[in-house]
Amino acid sequence: MLLLVSPIDVEEAKEAIEGGADIIDVKNPKEGSLGANFPWVIREVRKITPKSLLVSATVGDVPYKPGTVSLAALGAGMSGADYIKVGLYGVKNYNQAVELMKSVVKAVKDFDDNKIVVAAGYADAYRVGAVDPLVIPKIARDSGADVAMLDTAIKDGKTLFDFLSKEILEEFVSEVHDYGLKCALAGTIKKDHIPILKEIGTDIVGVRGAACKGGDRNKGRIDRNLVRELKELC
Amino acid sequence: MLLLVSPIDVEEAKEAIEGGADIIDVKNPKEGSLGANFPWVIREVRKITPKSLLVSATVGDVPYKPGTVSLAALGAGMSGADYIKVGLYGVKNYNQAVELMKSVVKAVKDFDDNKIVVAAGYADAYRVGAVDPLVIPKIARDSGADVAMLDTAIKDGKTLFDFLSKEILEEFVSEVHDYGLKCALAGTIKKDHIPILKEIGTDIVGVRGAACKGGDRNKGRIDRNLVRELKELC
Amino acid sequence: MLLLVSPIDVEEAKEAIEGGADIIDVKNPKEGSLGANFPWVIREVRKITPKSLLVSATVGDVPYKPGTVSLAALGAGMSGADYIKVGLYGVKNYNQAVELMKSVVKAVKDFDDNKIVVAAGYADAYRVGAVDPLVIPKIARDSGADVAMLDTAIKDGKTLFDFLSKEILEEFVSEVHDYGLKCALAGTIKKDHIPILKEIGTDIVGVRGAACKGGDRNKGRIDRNLVRELKELC
Amino acid sequence: MLLLVSPIDVEEAKEAIEGGADIIDVKNPKEGSLGANFPWVIREVRKITPKSLLVSATVGDVPYKPGTVSLAALGAGMSGADYIKVGLYGVKNYNQAVELMKSVVKAVKDFDDNKIVVAAGYADAYRVGAVDPLVIPKIARDSGADVAMLDTAIKDGKTLFDFLSKEILEEFVSEVHDYGLKCALAGTIKKDHIPILKEIGTDIVGVRGAACKGGDRNKGRIDRNLVRELKELC
Amino acid sequence: MLLLVSPIDVEEAKEAIEGGADIIDVKNPKEGSLGANFPWVIREVRKITPKSLLVSATVGDVPYKPGTVSLAALGAGMSGADYIKVGLYGVKNYNQAVELMKSVVKAVKDFDDNKIVVAAGYADAYRVGAVDPLVIPKIARDSGADVAMLDTAIKDGKTLFDFLSKEILEEFVSEVHDYGLKCALAGTIKKDHIPILKEIGTDIVGVRGAACKGGDRNKGRIDRNLVRELKELC
Amino acid sequence: MLLLVSPIDVEEAKEAIEGGADIIDVKNPKEGSLGANFPWVIREVRKITPKSLLVSATVGDVPYKPGTVSLAALGAGMSGADYIKVGLYGVKNYNQAVELMKSVVKAVKDFDDNKIVVAAGYADAYRVGAVDPLVIPKIARDSGADVAMLDTAIKDGKTLFDFLSKEILEEFVSEVHDYGLKCALAGTIKKDHIPILKEIGTDIVGVRGAACKGGDRNKGRIDRNLVRELKELC
Repeated sequence: MLLLVSPIDVEEAKEAIEGGADIIDVKNPKEGSLGANFPWVIREVRKITPKSLLVSATVGDVPYKPGTVSLAALGAGMSGADYIKVGLYGVKNYNQAVELMKSVVKAVKDFDDNKIVVAAGYADAYRVGAVDPLVIPKIARDSGADVAMLDTAIKDGKTLFDFLSKEILEEFVSEVHDYGLKCALAGTIKKDHIPILKEIGTDIVGVRGAACKGGDRNKGRIDRNLVRELKELC
Repeated sequence: MLLLVSPIDVEEAKEAIEGGADIIDVKNPKEGSLGANFPWVIREVRKITPKSLLVSATVGDVPYKPGTVSLAALGAGMSGADYIKVGLYGVKNYNQAVELMKSVVKAVKDFDDNKIVVAAGYADAYRVGAVDPLVIPKIARDSGADVAMLDTAIKDGKTLFDFLSKEILEEFVSEVHDYGLKCALAGTIKKDHIPILKEIGTDIVGVRGAACKGGDRNKGRIDRNLVRELKELC
Repeated sequence: MLLLVSPIDVEEAKEAIEGGADIIDVKNPKEGSLGANFPWVIREVRKITPKSLLVSATVGDVPYKPGTVSLAALGAGMSGADYIKVGLYGVKNYNQAVELMKSVVKAVKDFDDNKIVVAAGYADAYRVGAVDPLVIPKIARDSGADVAMLDTAIKDGKTLFDFLSKEILEEFVSEVHDYGLKCALAGTIKKDHIPILKEIGTDIVGVRGAACKGGDRNKGRIDRNLVRELKELC
Repeated sequence: MLLLVSPIDVEEAKEAIEGGADIIDVKNPKEGSLGANFPWVIREVRKITPKSLLVSATVGDVPYKPGTVSLAALGAGMSGADYIKVGLYGVKNYNQAVELMKSVVKAVKDFDDNKIVVAAGYADAYRVGAVDPLVIPKIARDSGADVAMLDTAIKDGKTLFDFLSKEILEEFVSEVHDYGLKCALAGTIKKDHIPILKEIGTDIVGVRGAACKGGDRNKGRIDRNLVRELKELC
Repeated sequence: MLLLVSPIDVEEAKEAIEGGADIIDVKNPKEGSLGANFPWVIREVRKITPKSLLVSATVGDVPYKPGTVSLAALGAGMSGADYIKVGLYGVKNYNQAVELMKSVVKAVKDFDDNKIVVAAGYADAYRVGAVDPLVIPKIARDSGADVAMLDTAIKDGKTLFDFLSKEILEEFVSEVHDYGLKCALAGTIKKDHIPILKEIGTDIVGVRGAACKGGDRNKGRIDRNLVRELKELC
Repeated sequence: MLLLVSPIDVEEAKEAIEGGADIIDVKNPKEGSLGANFPWVIREVRKITPKSLLVSATVGDVPYKPGTVSLAALGAGMSGADYIKVGLYGVKNYNQAVELMKSVVKAVKDFDDNKIVVAAGYADAYRVGAVDPLVIPKIARDSGADVAMLDTAIKDGKTLFDFLSKEILEEFVSEVHDYGLKCALAGTIKKDHIPILKEIGTDIVGVRGAACKGGDRNKGRIDRNLVRELKELC
């Protein structure tokens, strides 16, 4: 299982790299759960990250605007992101989501066919009116994305498992694999969740708080030792 | 006064070019008044447009998400747009607008310093909760944009002049010029409005319906003769 | 494929019976797409319907109130309904829906184990904020319901097929069958849709407008000949 | 004055019975101020309550859906409730309320003419957009209900008397009696309120917190001695 | 029964006077059903109206702002209005309404004890979230107002009788008289309604459309002959 | 720079007078940031205030109702206020604001041409959907008002400077002066802000908290010594 870690600056990114993270994830929490960061920040993180590691970047908790979002996805790819994550926030159903993700896939793959496109939904989608998390696998499949992902939309301490049971998540992973895609899971993941995620076959696990001193995603800083401990569990 | 025309496909773009338009504008009305089009559409229009003419592209009626929007602006610039328009739709005041536009200016000018950044507000902003149009000049000035623009947010037949009087628009143009910037005005502009816009010193006028057969922005198609007539008035 | 027809009064119910409908469905369109009718109306329809035919009754486009809804389901069962349909309108996700449907199943089966419980979702759920239609099969399975059904929430002329493609519906039916349940589909179904629904394996098709003179669910009246024509296609 | 006590489980119900409560009230606070409980819970409470005492059950803080609500009222009656309370939550005026209550009265009395139907309004109706409490007496009268009741919709510590003065409540009781009906009052009633309610002629007083240890409706448990003290004041 | 007529300008006011209206009512429909007109308009109508007739003025469909509204009521009284009507639009219950009306009564009566204060509610209050019309008599009584009035809030062709039955209105009038107050009724009153209003004891009936040519409150103009016909029925 | 102080009762008004305030401001915080007080309160404050000092009164955080608001402004003027402040709360743009303020100016100046009319906007207008503060100078100019003012709409501890930078405020003052009007600034102004406001040319500064013991606008009381200290800085 690959470990994706979300630093908030270059210094934290270095800790994550030292700790053995597989994917360095550039987000901007000020703009939401999957908030986009600026082109110059993505470029900087790509610069300090070894070639062997992947950089992921999100284009935001996006509205249902395929034009705007596909331009942003292109901008993220061009800034050096290998993984391009789209938070399906303002799309309300399968049809809208597939339409939007198809545009993103075309915009990104036209630019560089090796980029990996991630369709990300929210386990607590009902709290924000977004498309249901259980529909994400079909959306990823039918839009040509590479990875189906879940996170939580509202960061209030509740975790992925507060919204979806282990059984339902296991079905989710299995459905994604049936479609020949990879599966990424995140959402205030604690250390204790990692063996469960591994057991059910998750391909990529995303963390931030669990890699921070004191387990606090806001006040703590990413620590290489904590990253290493998490990586060992993957 | 430069004439900006907004075709919806390549065929219409050719008519606009033949008719003598100065700026060929790529929009996607499905995504709103200043809706963004896809990277491949911008590229295609740029390809068929003579070097001597400018291509403009909008990045959408944008939310208050500086990260997402600056990535999209970069994507638009990279796809070949010379003018990059940002519709200040989801920003509610001067501070938010300046923050967002500064990100866009940095993202675009880092990529190519010759690109022109347009801060676009809405004459009927109060109908959608967007920042007041009379504040746009200061926003353009303080964010380092090149052009201050107004359009209408809701296309229901009402024109720019239904929301702002000639006197107020004249003050608007004059304030923009005092700041050393250019001024673009649009919003269901009719042929008869053009001499007024010229009289008050507008630098760029944007049209679609007035360049379409029957004056109908939706059912009509852009016609080179109508474009020529409008250009002669500029 | 069984034919479910929704009359609005006893006279129409008789026409449906004469025309060969398999299931006589008691609704109250005044209270919504799956609006509940009164106990005395259900009793009356049950009285005039041959024992060999089933009577179905809906308990409404229900709010997320398991207590109230399970009392209503019991009331419907006690009034003579064989099929008890619950419109999952005010429930926003899998968890809420399973909790509510479990209460209904227990309330109904405690009373009479032969009653059939139908978990009904809406193809256009996003228009009313209800749980996604693609999640209904799992909800039916995990709550112990007997049938997974889809209808449309808003009766504005749009049909089931305007919201879900044939391919997606086929996957839906197939998933329901994998769980050992039956599948019912409705939503402004036209005569031409029936062969498609049959082809993809639907167990029960629900109609009203298509069985009315002039095809008009509001102004037309159910006609036995039209019912017969539809039945022949099933 | 009769004392109605609202236990949350069978053990509390027994305490209420031992303490001398006249009416044992089955609610489900998870579904709101007058939230409905499940059929099997009503049956269980009825089973352990002496024949000489009455069991009341609410069908919920109900929406304006006469069909659904009359089915639920029938379900509650059939489960053994003697008093059937309807919380007029989603009805906004006299006409809607009378229409809904008439359906409930018919559904319940058709089943068993001895059942008592209670039209319950909210003293703080304006906080939730429900029909005004001062209109409840006319609603009860014109729909054929037996009892007019008031409670509070939001349980935030405010009492009946925070929304309606003693003078207004006295007029309320007197109007209900003029119509030949009984009057029930509840809403975070404290021990000290009981003599006032008695003085103004209330027929039934409803309590929970005041019968709990520590006066806490949530953390305390109903205590037979507290019930006895309250009963002595009635 | 007194006839109150609502002209929209001085010319119409003269027609109403010639036709025999008892009360000349100054409103401003642009600001709502009971919209306030400007001080200079009230002064002008008072000037051309014979001393023997009364001029009424509304202070608006008011928000729950006792300070602002009592200042406006004083302004209306000072401008020459004899009747000062307050549309209880933004007040949601008895307590808020009594508080607001007490301030108005004090502001007006401190200035001139002969002014008549009217507490006006809306028959269709539930459509705008205003206090229930059936509570208006108690509000008028407990705030020291002189008249309890009803009108409709939304002018969509529906009349007073579409929201309140003759029986309920008769109770309303009777309750107002029990309190020693006068009762005024309005709300798209047609000629045929007037004998009914007279029969149930209404003191003042308010009209506009019925006094206009073609019965059209918007396009028609008040006609002295129509006013006379209405007056004869009073 | 003149010092405007906002007492909440007559005793505090006397302290403000003793402390050397230039303008005694009558507000009613219960009705909002610029909430109106009652006619009798304005009269009382005017009575105890020396002729040489001015009394100001607000007519409220007003809705877009020119009729109601002009009646209230007249009521305030007639009650003795010299300054009449209108909080442009429910008006959403320049056109609505100019229309409303013109009515107020006419209502007040018709009554007494010496009264001073203040068009007051909110620095945090975007939090309540009111017209943008940067547009207030043009509104004051074009409606014939005498003073352009800013305050904050929501009193949550944030100050004028949290919403508008010193640079922007300086432009504001300068624009107001260019139009030949006076400029008043308020909004949780602290002692330390006063020299800055003076430096940028403000004509009138409004305070309450800074003049209260403990700096607490709610729990503290106005103290003559604190008023004197503030006055010395003006």
